[in-house]
Amino acid sequence: MTTRPEFESHASGLLFPEIREILRTAPGELPEVTEELHPADLADMVTRLEENEIRIFFSNLPIDRAADVAEYVDSSLRAHLVTSLDPDRAARIVSAMSPDDRADILADMEPEPAAAILARIALPQRRETQLLMQYEPHTAGGIMTTQFVTLPLATRADHALALVKAAAQEKETIYTIFVIDREEKLTGVVSLRELLVADPIQRLADIMNESVVWVTPETDQEEVARLISKYDILALPVVDEGRSMLGVITVDDVIDVLVAEGTEDAQKMGAVAPIEEPYLVAGFWEVVRKRVVWLIVLFLGGLFTASALEHYEGAIASLSALVLFIPLILSTGGNSGSQSATLVIRALATGELKTNEYMRVLVRELMVGIALGVILGAIGYLRAYLLPGKGNTDPSGIALVVAITIVAVVVNGCVVGSLLPILLKKMKLDPALMSAPFIASLIDVMGIIVYFSIASSLLRLG
Amino acid sequence: MTTRPEFESHASGLLFPEIREILRTAPGELPEVTEELHPADLADMVTRLEENEIRIFFSNLPIDRAADVAEYVDSSLRAHLVTSLDPDRAARIVSAMSPDDRADILADMEPEPAAAILARIALPQRRETQLLMQYEPHTAGGIMTTQFVTLPLATRADHALALVKAAAQEKETIYTIFVIDREEKLTGVVSLRELLVADPIQRLADIMNESVVWVTPETDQEEVARLISKYDILALPVVDEGRSMLGVITVDDVIDVLVAEGTEDAQKMGAVAPIEEPYLVAGFWEVVRKRVVWLIVLFLGGLFTASALEHYEGAIASLSALVLFIPLILSTGGNSGSQSATLVIRALATGELKTNEYMRVLVRELMVGIALGVILGAIGYLRAYLLPGKGNTDPSGIALVVAITIVAVVVNGCVVGSLLPILLKKMKLDPALMSAPFIASLIDVMGIIVYFSIASSLLRLG
Repeated sequence: MTTRPEFESHASGLLFPEIREILRTAPGELPEVTEELHPADLADMVTRLEENEIRIFFSNLPIDRAADVAEYVDSSLRAHLVTSLDPDRAARIVSAMSPDDRADILADMEPEPAAAILARIALPQRRETQLLMQYEPHTAGGIMTTQFVTLPLATRADHALALVKAAAQEKETIYTIFVIDREEKLTGVVSLRELLVADPIQRLADIMNESVVWVTPETDQEEVARLISKYDILALPVVDEGRSMLGVITVDDVIDVLVAEGTEDAQKMGAVAPIEEPYLVAGFWEVVRKRVVWLIVLFLGGLFTASALEHYEGAIASLSALVLFIPLILSTGGNSGSQSATLVIRALATGELKTNEYMRVLVRELMVGIALGVILGAIGYLRAYLLPGKGNTDPSGIALVVAITIVAVVVNGCVVGSLLPILLKKMKLDPALMSAPFIASLIDVMGIIVYFSIASSLLRLG
Repeated sequence: MTTRPEFESHASGLLFPEIREILRTAPGELPEVTEELHPADLADMVTRLEENEIRIFFSNLPIDRAADVAEYVDSSLRAHLVTSLDPDRAARIVSAMSPDDRADILADMEPEPAAAILARIALPQRRETQLLMQYEPHTAGGIMTTQFVTLPLATRADHALALVKAAAQEKETIYTIFVIDREEKLTGVVSLRELLVADPIQRLADIMNESVVWVTPETDQEEVARLISKYDILALPVVDEGRSMLGVITVDDVIDVLVAEGTEDAQKMGAVAPIEEPYLVAGFWEVVRKRVVWLIVLFLGGLFTASALEHYEGAIASLSALVLFIPLILSTGGNSGSQSATLVIRALATGELKTNEYMRVLVRELMVGIALGVILGAIGYLRAYLLPGKGNTDPSGIALVVAITIVAVVVNGCVVGSLLPILLKKMKLDPALMSAPFIASLIDVMGIIVYFSIASSLLRLG
C-alpha cells in the first residue's frame, strides 16, 4: 500500500483508540494490526500511552520491530520508556537498536537500571556502547554511530564493491567509504556512486576524494550541523588526534539536531531556559523553574525603570500628560531593538555575519534606525498633538517631545539590539542568550531617561 | 590533503585577498590556485566580490567547476551572479548545473535575461527547466530535482543493479530506486543497500518497501522537511494525480529548507517580515520596508496604552507613585506572555502539540502563571513597600496593589500568549506571525486596565 501524507494523521488519530483497546483486550494481535504502520507513526502513538500500556506495547511486538519503533521515539522520552520494561526484554530491544541510539538511551537513564540492562548485553556490543556513552550528549561523539566501512588505499574498486556488499547487511552507513592508510589514518573518501562508475581495476587511492572534512568527538553538534549543511555531506567522519576513525555522523541525525537547536534558540530568544521535552510532557515544576529564573532576572532589570521614574516624580506631577506616552515609547524602543537583535542573532548563527563586521552593522543600524524613527515619530506627533487630556496645556510642545523621543529610542533600540549579540559572541557567549526581552528591559530604562531629559529641556518642567 | 574544519576560515580568510589580487593581475592562474578549495568555500568568497570581479572569476574557471561553485552560492544571490556574466558563458554554466538549481536561478532572474539564457540551452534540458520553473519556489515542485531512477516491478535484482550502475554517471539520486507498475504508477521503493544484499534473481516486487511516503508538487516545503525528518527519508518522491513520478527531493535540499525556515520563523517572531538575503547584503530600503510595517502595526497597538492611561488621569494625578510601576508591570506581563508564546509556537511547529489540545494548554498555563506570578509578586511587594517616593503616604497599600497586579498580568500573559498562537493556527494562519511583541502590546493595554482597576478598588483614589 502506497502511503499518502494524510495517512499519517489517520494512523495516529483514527487508529489510536483502536490500538489502546487491543492493548487492553487482545495484546497478542498487536503485531498484525500495526503491521502496515510506519515505525515513526507508532512512535508517535507510544508517547501518548500510559506507562502500563507502554509496557504491554513493547512486550508484544517482535524485538526488531520494537527496536525500530523505539529509535523513532523522541530522544528525551526514550529512557523513560525503557525503564518501564523488565530488564531482560529491555536489554534485548536495546541490543537490536543502532549503537548511537543505544548509547543515548542508556546515558539518559538512572545509573542503576542502565547498569542492569548493560550487564545483559553481549560483550562486544557492551564495550561499544560504553565507549559511546563517554562522550557528552551534544557533541560529535555523542551523536556519532560506530557502524561504517573503512578500506585501505590499495583496495581495487571491484574488490571494494564486494566488501561493501558484504558489509551492507550490518553497517548503517555504506554510501560513503572511508579510505585509510597503513597507520589507519583517514586519507580520503569514496562515495558508493563513484565506486559503481569506477573502472574495476582502479585502486581506491586513485578514485578517492582527498579533501575530507572531519571533526573530533568534542566538536559541538551545532558546528557539525553547519558543516554537513554547508558542504552537503552524507556522512561526516569523526576522528581522534591521530586521525583514526572513531565514528560517523549521518545527515538524518543532523536533521534532528537542527530541529532541536532551532527549538533551543527560539526558547532562548523567548527568555526560556532550554526545555527538551515536548510541551505537554515536560513536568510542571520543571517548566516553572526554567521560566522563573529569566523572569526574575528581567524583573530585577525592570525595577530600574521604577527607580528611573522616581527620579522624575517632580516632572510627572507638574505635567501628568507625559505619563500617557511612557508605555508607547518604551514598547516602540523595545520592538525595534528586538527586530535588530533577531536579524543579527540569526545572521551570526547561520554564519552570514562575522563578529569583526560590527562597524558595518553599526552604520547600517544607525541609518535604518533613523529612517524607522522618523516614520514612527511622525505618527506619534499626530497622536500627541490631538491629545484631549486634562493636563495638556501645550499640545505642540508635548507632541514635539514625544516625536523626538521616539526617534531617539528607535535609533537606540536598533544600535543596542544589534551590537549586544555581537559583543556576547565576541565574549564567547551564546548571542541568543541575550534574549530579546532582556534587550527590551535595558532599552526601557534608557527610554525613560531620554524621554524625561528631552521633556525637561524643551518644556521647562517644575 | 585532508581538511580540518579550521581550514574553512583559512580558505575564506587568508586566501581571500590573494584571490582578489589574482583576479586583478593574473586571472588565468585562478583554476590552479583554487584547485584544492572546496566549492562551498569558493562560493563563500564569491559573495564578497565586486560585480566585475565576479565576472572575471566565473570567466576563468572551467565550466564544470564554475557550475559546482554556483550551486553552493546562497540561492538569493545566484540570479544576480549569473546576470553579471555574458549570456553565452552564463548558459554553459547554467547547463552544467543540476536541473533544480538551474530552474531556481532562471526563475529568480528578470524575464528578459532569463529568456536569453534559456534560448541558449539544449532543447531537452530547456524543456526540463521550463517544466520545473512552473512550480512555486517554496513548494515540493520548486525544490525537487528530475534526476532519479525508476524501474518496473518485474526487474531482477542483478539487472536492476546493472541499470543503476549505468545511471550513476548522470543521475543525482541513485541510493533510492523507485519501483513503478505498468501504468507508471509509483508502487514501492528499494534502497541501493537492499539491492546490494538481495538475492540476484529476486524481483524488485519482492524486495521493495511498499509503504512509500510521497508528496504532490504543491506540498509546502516546510511539510516536506517535516516528513523527511520524521520518517528519516533519503529521497522523497513527488508525484502527480495519477501517482506518476515527477521528481525527487533529497535530504540535503531539506537541510537548506530547515535553515531558511528557521530564519523565517525567527524573523516573524521578532516582528520582521521575512528577509531572504544575508544580513549585510539585503538592500537598505528593503530592510526598512520589511521592518516598518510591523513596527507601525505595533505602534498603533501601543497607542491604545495611551488611551487607556488617559482614562486614568485622575488616579495618576491623585497618586503619582502609581506611575513608577507601570513599565515594570507591563514588561513583566509581556515577558511571561512571550515565554508562553515561544513554547507554544515551537510545539505547534514541531507537531508536538495539536490545536485541539487547547484545554490542556489553558489549564497548564493557568497553573504555571499562578506559580510564576506569586513568586514575582512577592519581589514586587518588597520593592514597592520600600518605596521612598514623595507622593507615597501608604506604602503597604501600593505594595499590595502592585503585587496583586503582577499576579494578574503574569497569569493573563501566560494565557493570552499560549492561546493566541493556537487560535491563529486554527484559523489557518501562521502562529509565528502573531509575533511575541504583538502579544506584548495586547497584554500592555490589559495590564494598564487591571492595574488601575485594582488600585481604584483598593486605594479609593480621587
